[in-house]
Amino acid sequence: MVATQMIDRNTIEQIVRQIVFQQSGSAESPPGQSDKSELVVSISARHCHLTDEHVEILFGPGSTLTPMRDLYQDGFYAAEETVMVVGPRRRMLPNVRVLGPTRPHSQVELAFTDGISLGLDVPVRHSGNIEGTPGCVLVGPKGVVELDEGVIRAARHVHMNMRDAENYGVKKGDFVNLHVNSPQCSVVFEDLLVRADETSKLEVHIDTDEGNACFLDGANKVELKKQEPCGCKNKVKE
Amino acid sequence: MVATQMIDRNTIEQIVRQIVFQQSGSAESPPGQSDKSELVVSISARHCHLTDEHVEILFGPGSTLTPMRDLYQDGFYAAEETVMVVGPRRRMLPNVRVLGPTRPHSQVELAFTDGISLGLDVPVRHSGNIEGTPGCVLVGPKGVVELDEGVIRAARHVHMNMRDAENYGVKKGDFVNLHVNSPQCSVVFEDLLVRADETSKLEVHIDTDEGNACFLDGANKVELKKQEPCGCKNKVKE
Repeated sequence: MVATQMIDRNTIEQIVRQIVFQQSGSAESPPGQSDKSELVVSISARHCHLTDEHVEILFGPGSTLTPMRDLYQDGFYAAEETVMVVGPRRRMLPNVRVLGPTRPHSQVELAFTDGISLGLDVPVRHSGNIEGTPGCVLVGPKGVVELDEGVIRAARHVHMNMRDAENYGVKKGDFVNLHVNSPQCSVVFEDLLVRADETSKLEVHIDTDEGNACFLDGANKVELKKQEPCGCKNKVKE
Repeated sequence: MVATQMIDRNTIEQIVRQIVFQQSGSAESPPGQSDKSELVVSISARHCHLTDEHVEILFGPGSTLTPMRDLYQDGFYAAEETVMVVGPRRRMLPNVRVLGPTRPHSQVELAFTDGISLGLDVPVRHSGNIEGTPGCVLVGPKGVVELDEGVIRAARHVHMNMRDAENYGVKKGDFVNLHVNSPQCSVVFEDLLVRADETSKLEVHIDTDEGNACFLDGANKVELKKQEPCGCKNKVKE
């Protein structure tokens, strides 16, 4: 039992690693009195989303996903279930975690490194925008599903609620930058899409390549900044 | 023979992928009349450097490295030779390319992703600064070497000559930022150490995690920029 629990914990830790930083208050707010939310930066390891129909094909008639661990956003979870993802030339990733709940379309989210090992050119797409993307074969314990499309590298994004959006001076559909200060490998990730709604918690999603590029686990500061034009030589966008 | 050549080409392409961009001229220089060097950004895949002694242990008495392909910097090459790198708990990377010429100390350079798959916490270090870093076991066709230290993630850096340094307004030991504009995944890599000498060609070295994070192959613009303080909200460093 102990061994099983350790394996599960390792597995869980590989699904989503999260780094939480207290956003520094603005110049107008004395320290500790800021009303800004804590900034959570989550590294999503490779995973997939499935339709109800595909869950039944892969795991047997009548099957539903079994929640294993809640994700940071309410209502979402990592499931007990995993699938094998098979790419061209029979290369494969043996244990890709399924996230729940089920969705209207099945979708596989990989880092570029995963795509290279699978032999796939994985396009950067926002979740759900899968038209024209490569497909793959999913193998479960009870069946096989051939996806015609749906393999993507999830584009960076940040979930937030309307109060967060107001604090940052942004709205749904805007883009922001994530500054990660890490010893000897600081990075500014541009192009994070703002996904604002009434209920989401403030959370950035990046993938394992991005998390490893900036050694997020070793970071001493993360900040979200609105993209604004400026005249200085350090400007992020021209 | 054709199959062998294809395998070799694939292998070679995985050693160093290079993206070359013409640096845009400054505002003072009409287009095409800039004296700035072309900016080459190279992605170094995992590789190792060996001492003469370790080459003989791994590949047999009297062995020397066999150059397979010249690297961009004059005098450096990818060798025909590869070694197996074995980490703790007997996890391993089967074919890690040796780069030449030999050095006074053996050193293994991995991306974080490689370190995770080997089970090693790989510190970010500049080449040669290996004191206190983890070791590993190297296995060659004729022998085995146990390194007490020398496994690092190479810190980002840029080689240049003195004319390049003058053009950028920097000197040896300064830090610069690399801006990579890529559709939906632009990145600013900070903390690139300037390694300026009389003869080097202008070339940035990043690793595979960094290259994948910004999808360097799909980039439409790369720029090196001096780190300068500014008062704007997009400032890179505070």
